[in-house]
Amino acid sequence: MTDSHSPLALAQGLIRCPSVTPHEGGALAYLAGILAAAGFAVERPVFSEAGTPDIENLYARIGEGPCLLLAGHTDVVPPGDPSAWRHDPFAGTVEGGALFGRGAVDMKGGIACMLAAVLAFLRQRGPDFGGAIAFLITGDEEGPAVNGTVKLLDWAQARGERFSHCLLGEPTNPDALGEMIKIGRRGSLTATLTVHGVQGHVAYPHRAENPIPGLLRLAQGLLASPLDAGTAHFDASNLEFTTMDVGNPATNVIPAEARATFNVRFNDLWTPETLAAELERRLEAAAGNAVRYTLDVRPTNSVAFLTVPDAFVEQVADAIEAETGRRPALSTTGGTSDARFIKDACPVIEFGLVGQTMHQVDERVAVSDLDRLTAIYRRVLEAYFPDAAASPRQA
Amino acid sequence: MTDSHSPLALAQGLIRCPSVTPHEGGALAYLAGILAAAGFAVERPVFSEAGTPDIENLYARIGEGPCLLLAGHTDVVPPGDPSAWRHDPFAGTVEGGALFGRGAVDMKGGIACMLAAVLAFLRQRGPDFGGAIAFLITGDEEGPAVNGTVKLLDWAQARGERFSHCLLGEPTNPDALGEMIKIGRRGSLTATLTVHGVQGHVAYPHRAENPIPGLLRLAQGLLASPLDAGTAHFDASNLEFTTMDVGNPATNVIPAEARATFNVRFNDLWTPETLAAELERRLEAAAGNAVRYTLDVRPTNSVAFLTVPDAFVEQVADAIEAETGRRPALSTTGGTSDARFIKDACPVIEFGLVGQTMHQVDERVAVSDLDRLTAIYRRVLEAYFPDAAASPRQA
Repeated sequence: MTDSHSPLALAQGLIRCPSVTPHEGGALAYLAGILAAAGFAVERPVFSEAGTPDIENLYARIGEGPCLLLAGHTDVVPPGDPSAWRHDPFAGTVEGGALFGRGAVDMKGGIACMLAAVLAFLRQRGPDFGGAIAFLITGDEEGPAVNGTVKLLDWAQARGERFSHCLLGEPTNPDALGEMIKIGRRGSLTATLTVHGVQGHVAYPHRAENPIPGLLRLAQGLLASPLDAGTAHFDASNLEFTTMDVGNPATNVIPAEARATFNVRFNDLWTPETLAAELERRLEAAAGNAVRYTLDVRPTNSVAFLTVPDAFVEQVADAIEAETGRRPALSTTGGTSDARFIKDACPVIEFGLVGQTMHQVDERVAVSDLDRLTAIYRRVLEAYFPDAAASPRQA
Repeated sequence: MTDSHSPLALAQGLIRCPSVTPHEGGALAYLAGILAAAGFAVERPVFSEAGTPDIENLYARIGEGPCLLLAGHTDVVPPGDPSAWRHDPFAGTVEGGALFGRGAVDMKGGIACMLAAVLAFLRQRGPDFGGAIAFLITGDEEGPAVNGTVKLLDWAQARGERFSHCLLGEPTNPDALGEMIKIGRRGSLTATLTVHGVQGHVAYPHRAENPIPGLLRLAQGLLASPLDAGTAHFDASNLEFTTMDVGNPATNVIPAEARATFNVRFNDLWTPETLAAELERRLEAAAGNAVRYTLDVRPTNSVAFLTVPDAFVEQVADAIEAETGRRPALSTTGGTSDARFIKDACPVIEFGLVGQTMHQVDERVAVSDLDRLTAIYRRVLEAYFPDAAASPRQA
């Protein structure tokens, strides 16, 4: 492994590209150069859609046969006030054994580890390693996610590309490397509830109809009992009210309407459709004939999914345990990720760095974690593409 | 009664003065001229306070002995879009037996009737009618009510003025003249409830603390049982939430705080202090140790008060019944009025026109109601100041 292809050097190279969504910032060009030099066929499709910025993406493939897809994104969230940072968020400074910078863990660091592992693997095994490896890297994960992974997968599959498994390098570990593989994600559904009343003067409530007690009643109805108790691989579905607004500045006026928005993170017992029906059922029961309301469920492409643990999950877990001494939990917790799109193309799991500082000021990663994650990915490649000549199992 | 001193002519004269709070608009000058010509000593004090507009007021008195105070306001609420009106809101147009204009019922019409009745009474009885009559007219009833009746009463009492009873000419009848005398008013208390939580991501609710369920719980606690069942002369006290606001646009974020404002119209079982204590007690019980909250009660000078029905109330009710055939209800319903300030100076009751169109487009009064209300006020004056020479009762 040459120094310029160490995970630290590659992560620094990526962090120094200011690729805040939707800007490419040089990050994909940087990857394209290295992958092409290593023998990958590299494509750089740009996708567009009315109302969203054009987005650059990267697809690169090497080899023939069963294809392991390595996925990720080079775009990052804004750094906020750079002066609040200990080091320039786009400098890639190392201090006290940690690499600082926006994207250090989410997820330029993860891509650097994947790339470092693949380069070392190819140096050892050459281009005829008995399979194929593809990189699917978008610049639109932190943004609207419209011109990124969804279209890139469609584009690749239209060209005849097929994948056996996908490993997505998002930060999946809460506190220490090796704790957690994500084998699925909950779905997300957002809806706005409006209760309709009749405006009037507070001194004459019998001539008005206050919508606020009705909203309280419906909200209690939604929260009254758990949606479910969770499943084998999923936590219980959870509903959180995110806002509740009337916007009436007059303290002597009963308002005409009251609104609340809530978000549900739901498990594999539900689809967006069955969940919406359950919410409607709860609202109808709580409303009786006493509350007039409207429920607007926002369209969502975020469904719950689970990658049923298979031999590949075992290979990844084994690799993690070998390098960290920890047997990772198989989890479906947390927010959504592009895995929700990839799961339609092939089984997908996620494993990457420690997420603690993601999206925060002073986002950073231990350099030792970069080295260990690279070693884990390297083990995954070796297990996925066993060396027929070297392995007694294949003899 | 000369034509220029008919209640219709006086009401038109007042409506033609554009006295939208805080502007005097010529209305008090118009009254001052007529009252001075009738023999009243007229004063026009202007009151000021930092942060509020200067306000012109009027105080006029005639006679010696027990003083009947006639109170009211010449300021009016804005007309809104004048083109939405059937007639210019400041023209005083009569059509179909109704006088149109801002203030027609609230309460330039009522003042016109008081003035017409007093002028006719004085023409008949002369200045030595065995008592005193005073007009206390403010230009700040529809505004902050800081530089109006409160200061005008203090000013008058500091000059040694004393009052036996007060009749306030606010519109008190819901649908037809004669239905209702107001013998008191409920108090009004406004408070804002803030529930404190911990902001976080909706996908990690265990790391956050959503304030919205806490607000629902406290709001239900406040509404759970009636504050009281009402008293002999008062409806039950009533709490209405007027707004509820979080203002969080991010559907994936649990907010840090949630706020609600409510207003209580309370009867004579409560003072603002005892009511605030009861609200705190209910909130503490509902919160347990699970909800962190703050209650900000706004300072209020609006207390509940009752003028215990006495001979004066009977005289007014008799006068109403004689002219309308209706025995008026003695009520404490509706909003607040300047009676809440006057009650500290003398017993005060309210009787005026029909309030249906007050504050609305096309505010209007039946000309026949102006005549009948004038006749009622005239009977009140005659009953309050009986003619020793004419009355067999005094013989």
